[in-house]
Amino acid sequence: MSDPVIREIGAEEFERVWPLFQAVLAGGDTYMYPPDLGIDRACAMWTTPPSRCFVSERDGVVLGCYRLAPNQIGLGDHVANGSYMVAPQARGQGIASALCEHSLEQARQAGFTAMQFNCVVASNAIAVRLWLRHGFRIVGQVPGAFRHAQLGPTDIYVMHRAL
Amino acid sequence: MSDPVIREIGAEEFERVWPLFQAVLAGGDTYMYPPDLGIDRACAMWTTPPSRCFVSERDGVVLGCYRLAPNQIGLGDHVANGSYMVAPQARGQGIASALCEHSLEQARQAGFTAMQFNCVVASNAIAVRLWLRHGFRIVGQVPGAFRHAQLGPTDIYVMHRAL
Repeated sequence: MSDPVIREIGAEEFERVWPLFQAVLAGGDTYMYPPDLGIDRACAMWTTPPSRCFVSERDGVVLGCYRLAPNQIGLGDHVANGSYMVAPQARGQGIASALCEHSLEQARQAGFTAMQFNCVVASNAIAVRLWLRHGFRIVGQVPGAFRHAQLGPTDIYVMHRAL
Repeated sequence: MSDPVIREIGAEEFERVWPLFQAVLAGGDTYMYPPDLGIDRACAMWTTPPSRCFVSERDGVVLGCYRLAPNQIGLGDHVANGSYMVAPQARGQGIASALCEHSLEQARQAGFTAMQFNCVVASNAIAVRLWLRHGFRIVGQVPGAFRHAQLGPTDIYVMHRAL
């Protein structure tokens, strides 16, 4: 089995990540996005500049993806924001970790000086551990800001690291 | 002098708040928005549903304004977000306090169960004190996330209260 390759894609290839997107959102346990988000809106959010979309793939199969964008406009646009998804059948293979490292390097190259996540669902222990391992700190905790499909109102963490 | 009145406006009246907007953004000390933000983009951000724009005015003079919107889409849209501006010549008259109370009531009526501010500039002591007085707590602090025109990289607070 060859190694996964991470590369940037544009709107014209977004349909390739769409099944993965739908699988992740169907859970209602990790992403704010409405579970019935349509492909056109998702594609616009992930591929319209300054947002950039990257995929991890092996032998033409999409294993994961991430979005890199400024976390704010204007006087906060030196801080990047990242959103990551891994296909259910590709979990436990270090895909998210590789996507995270790739995004940190891309963010540095683009001139960002920090990376911030606004909505890490506190019950998503795998993600929280992963970000901590990659140098992020929890800098905020908002009570009940996420309506978890199984757990109901759930806290979200704000996480941050310098680049 | 009559009491200020707070009412909702649409895009067709947005030009009335624009001088106030420009005065606030010119400071580069309280808002993330780029200081050269244009009226069309500002109007779209403040008046396109689900965003709603309210003004405080006295005898036809705009004293302040605020934007009420969901803080996130989808599974986080039960939390409101508010953004407030007061005209430089109207400060010290309780305008921001009245706008805040009005926005909390509007948010309740619209079904939101909490209000969150993502970017309260830590050096903006007047605003921080005001929000604390209106029941908000500091639930996060992001280092250097705001490029303050005078102070350089400045922390921002995430603030929150239940409704």
